[in-house]
Amino acid sequence: MLNNKVIILLVLMFFIISVFCSDPDPVNDYCIAISEDNKFSCKNSSLATVEDFTFSGIKSPGNFKATGFTSMGVNSNVFPGLNTLGVSFVRADFDVGGVNVPHFHPRATEVAIVLEGKIYSGFVDTKNKIFAKVLEKGEVMVFPRGLVHFQMNVGDVPATIFGSFDSQNPGLMKIPNVVFGSEIKDELLEKAFGLNSKELSKLKKRFSPS
Amino acid sequence: MLNNKVIILLVLMFFIISVFCSDPDPVNDYCIAISEDNKFSCKNSSLATVEDFTFSGIKSPGNFKATGFTSMGVNSNVFPGLNTLGVSFVRADFDVGGVNVPHFHPRATEVAIVLEGKIYSGFVDTKNKIFAKVLEKGEVMVFPRGLVHFQMNVGDVPATIFGSFDSQNPGLMKIPNVVFGSEIKDELLEKAFGLNSKELSKLKKRFSPS
Amino acid sequence: MLNNKVIILLVLMFFIISVFCSDPDPVNDYCIAISEDNKFSCKNSSLATVEDFTFSGIKSPGNFKATGFTSMGVNSNVFPGLNTLGVSFVRADFDVGGVNVPHFHPRATEVAIVLEGKIYSGFVDTKNKIFAKVLEKGEVMVFPRGLVHFQMNVGDVPATIFGSFDSQNPGLMKIPNVVFGSEIKDELLEKAFGLNSKELSKLKKRFSPS
Amino acid sequence: MLNNKVIILLVLMFFIISVFCSDPDPVNDYCIAISEDNKFSCKNSSLATVEDFTFSGIKSPGNFKATGFTSMGVNSNVFPGLNTLGVSFVRADFDVGGVNVPHFHPRATEVAIVLEGKIYSGFVDTKNKIFAKVLEKGEVMVFPRGLVHFQMNVGDVPATIFGSFDSQNPGLMKIPNVVFGSEIKDELLEKAFGLNSKELSKLKKRFSPS
Amino acid sequence: MLNNKVIILLVLMFFIISVFCSDPDPVNDYCIAISEDNKFSCKNSSLATVEDFTFSGIKSPGNFKATGFTSMGVNSNVFPGLNTLGVSFVRADFDVGGVNVPHFHPRATEVAIVLEGKIYSGFVDTKNKIFAKVLEKGEVMVFPRGLVHFQMNVGDVPATIFGSFDSQNPGLMKIPNVVFGSEIKDELLEKAFGLNSKELSKLKKRFSPS
Amino acid sequence: MLNNKVIILLVLMFFIISVFCSDPDPVNDYCIAISEDNKFSCKNSSLATVEDFTFSGIKSPGNFKATGFTSMGVNSNVFPGLNTLGVSFVRADFDVGGVNVPHFHPRATEVAIVLEGKIYSGFVDTKNKIFAKVLEKGEVMVFPRGLVHFQMNVGDVPATIFGSFDSQNPGLMKIPNVVFGSEIKDELLEKAFGLNSKELSKLKKRFSPS
Repeated sequence: MLNNKVIILLVLMFFIISVFCSDPDPVNDYCIAISEDNKFSCKNSSLATVEDFTFSGIKSPGNFKATGFTSMGVNSNVFPGLNTLGVSFVRADFDVGGVNVPHFHPRATEVAIVLEGKIYSGFVDTKNKIFAKVLEKGEVMVFPRGLVHFQMNVGDVPATIFGSFDSQNPGLMKIPNVVFGSEIKDELLEKAFGLNSKELSKLKKRFSPS
Repeated sequence: MLNNKVIILLVLMFFIISVFCSDPDPVNDYCIAISEDNKFSCKNSSLATVEDFTFSGIKSPGNFKATGFTSMGVNSNVFPGLNTLGVSFVRADFDVGGVNVPHFHPRATEVAIVLEGKIYSGFVDTKNKIFAKVLEKGEVMVFPRGLVHFQMNVGDVPATIFGSFDSQNPGLMKIPNVVFGSEIKDELLEKAFGLNSKELSKLKKRFSPS
Repeated sequence: MLNNKVIILLVLMFFIISVFCSDPDPVNDYCIAISEDNKFSCKNSSLATVEDFTFSGIKSPGNFKATGFTSMGVNSNVFPGLNTLGVSFVRADFDVGGVNVPHFHPRATEVAIVLEGKIYSGFVDTKNKIFAKVLEKGEVMVFPRGLVHFQMNVGDVPATIFGSFDSQNPGLMKIPNVVFGSEIKDELLEKAFGLNSKELSKLKKRFSPS
Repeated sequence: MLNNKVIILLVLMFFIISVFCSDPDPVNDYCIAISEDNKFSCKNSSLATVEDFTFSGIKSPGNFKATGFTSMGVNSNVFPGLNTLGVSFVRADFDVGGVNVPHFHPRATEVAIVLEGKIYSGFVDTKNKIFAKVLEKGEVMVFPRGLVHFQMNVGDVPATIFGSFDSQNPGLMKIPNVVFGSEIKDELLEKAFGLNSKELSKLKKRFSPS
Repeated sequence: MLNNKVIILLVLMFFIISVFCSDPDPVNDYCIAISEDNKFSCKNSSLATVEDFTFSGIKSPGNFKATGFTSMGVNSNVFPGLNTLGVSFVRADFDVGGVNVPHFHPRATEVAIVLEGKIYSGFVDTKNKIFAKVLEKGEVMVFPRGLVHFQMNVGDVPATIFGSFDSQNPGLMKIPNVVFGSEIKDELLEKAFGLNSKELSKLKKRFSPS
Repeated sequence: MLNNKVIILLVLMFFIISVFCSDPDPVNDYCIAISEDNKFSCKNSSLATVEDFTFSGIKSPGNFKATGFTSMGVNSNVFPGLNTLGVSFVRADFDVGGVNVPHFHPRATEVAIVLEGKIYSGFVDTKNKIFAKVLEKGEVMVFPRGLVHFQMNVGDVPATIFGSFDSQNPGLMKIPNVVFGSEIKDELLEKAFGLNSKELSKLKKRFSPS
């Protein structure tokens, strides 16, 4: 009988794994998340160490050889010390010609600095106006919250970017995958993009998850 | 002994039923509340379905015959998918002559559209200036956050309004009930409204909860 | 000489037409914007009338015959009384089979109620999971802030939706137009979507602004 | 001709007198408002002095003899140095038996400390539950944002309270004046409060502004 | 075996004692924190009483005889009813000549009123400009969010101040203790302040915690 | 006479040079500030170009030879395109042994990545607990909002850091300068730090602005 109560508790815990969180002014100095699923409850602050506030996982590039591009988003799920602090960051590496496809972050502005290489970089505003140019090492571009942006290595050597966000979990929507890889009804997509069913089918095959 | 620990846990759970919540920028796509009492912990997002984000409970009017007016506020307690999303809504139905008494929402602005009928609708600002007029089907009025507002069906047929809020839980304070139905000291109310004790007594009887 | 100073002032005014604005808690009851370009300065509150807080422009459907779909977004540019109040709204009308293309609002969650008809309606989250179903009259769906969503009239008669937002100016990015109608470099788009230059060319022609 | 341009400018200025403002995180150390009508533009910070951040106007009680109660709300209109700082305050003085009528602040929580005397003090929550007790000198009560609250001097000597708010301009709605002194349609008020027209008339006379 | 599961739960609870919290708009009327470690989960609102919203602990001065100064910060850890309400407060008592050392609150603006005595009071802005003067009983000063401020009793009798904050937990950093009492590397401090190792050593001894 | 009106306007303009600003959700895509003094009014968005959103001023290190350290804070005053976007950044260069003195940002969390070299880096929390370690190239540290932090180049070659903030204007308070270079009353500082007047005098000389 006791057993059952505990089981009920554990089942309850299983369901409680996403959690309410927000990016407002914190009311504590920090609140180190205990797990990805549990951002509302935090490590006892007397157990916090400097390791909770430092991150070494982006010292080296990821493997960008397969697709020409790789990125590692370091949000509060990956780096729990960011929880409630309102910031996160990303490292992206581009092979020559590599592309960061049109995408946006639903919950943050991004500031990106070129660490190596030459990057064609831009965004589109809600009036459909484009702002794009080639950035060199040490140059910085800002992508306003929620606007679609994109990048391509237009130099002769691999390139690297460091981006930071004003949210602990900005979110990422890659346009090609969102639109053609998420099972939106065919008729709707055909009408929306003016594609026939064969054209759509090709696009969907490319971006379907499996 | 073990038993006791579990009981302590359960007793603790019983007390932990209201919960911290807020209407800032979310840090997740969504966070479906598990229960009315527990908005901080959310359904495992892999278990989320479209039913969590759709609501069918206001397709039909409530029963407005008894008092001339009925409303259903659909906040994050009623529709858990709204949790952390910063919005909620209400459907209100008025019999001919039906009245939505002066009230306010402590935590939200309201936008209301007339779905059917003719509604005298207005609010009062903090300089005590009134803004009121008769709205027809398809017309919209905005009630700024925290200001007292009111409505009355001045047409010949039942009327309906759909309102939406910029908070997941705007709160509702109905002036007559707050003032005369909440056991504020008689002497204070008599002085505040210039009523004698018989007049106050009549008003209190009308709005006392039982 | 004096003339010049005034001219300088006026030229300055011409450039100062977008303006800082935000959706936080207001510090006044309301602040009716004087013009689209000037949201920071407001009509003298003693001149405010009820007309500043009511809107009649969406009583009738727009002309959806040409493309099968039309929408009117009523934000603080269109309805200046919304300025600082943190809310706005939209009416959308669909012909039979009409489509609201995949799009998102960078700065708001949307709550949409079906006023007439049957609408296939859905969104995609940042894990690329789709949430979609057919909604009927009186049913409500919520689209979390910044997530891509879409709709199609799957009934036999024209359909209408009323949506509301928790921002006075949510912004709108229509995916097909943003991606294929904004002059992003061809090479980048070809790589991003796996299109050859002829396929891209056809898409760009369809969505180029002129 | 020149004259006209200047006049147009001045007329424009006349209309631009309320202004957009908000209580979010400031982005400057401070921003001293130039006038009540113009909170968005601030005194040159190099001209700021300590007098801009100190306030001496509540050293003495107001004249509470006439009505038994007086209060002075010190918001950013009265004390321009508060602009953008997110705080304001109030001093209230009560004669023996004096009443601060049921009221609320649409945009702030209040913390009130009794400086002198014995005050019956309370608020009502959105479930219509009352929280009230007698406070003595040095005791503090908190009134949550937007909830109706009230006070009465139940001691034998005049009493004083100092309250502070988490908004630079919390707003104030005094229930009796809002409801009976603002020209809401008689029929609506009679139905809302269950009053006959003679009873309503007496209340309206008491609270009509003139 | 069952034992172990419960123990794991309890160990988990031990680690979960700081917690996510924030100072945005609340989404409930209030949320009384259950314990200092657990601000996200709240007392069942039906069990709330007026005692949860009143505080009597600062009626009398603390013992300021030892050091000339004492303060009691009443934040949401001390007064759980403040949780989610966005406000907190402090009482500080000064002996003649007593000093409140240069300090700042990372998360709040402060409004301070002199209850008794004469206080030299001031702050420094981010351009290093000082704003300071002597305040008398009944005078008020505002210290903008995050700026260093300080006070000294320059009168002939003990003095008292009541301060309030626009955060439920503003935080406190006392400059001398932060800098010289926290084990920052000697070489860094010597260079930063231009001190030799003997001078630093004296300062560190004074402010080291033990 | 006309002259006078224009002069009054210009004098008024002179005083209006700081301005209200905030870091909440923007209500436009962007709002490029026209000048440092005028963040509320923005460049006509049709005149915006990609140059408004890119910054080239931190490609090269500043001159750190004189003091061993130099930094360039790129906030919305320096880079007007950041206005309303909620982010800003900084580049800091350290000679061998160079020190970034204990300081804090009143309005932002900072994320710092080491671009070159080895940096001893740390912060102190409001319980006076220190978190510090040596970071190498590619490692990242987060400094929570408002907490005192510091850095020193402990490697054999010059070092560089790129930091970013979740505010368009985080502010900077360098502890030694704030405390000893801002004309706080001597008696207060002597008591606060336990210094005699000769010791204080030496410190004040070092940090006095002239």
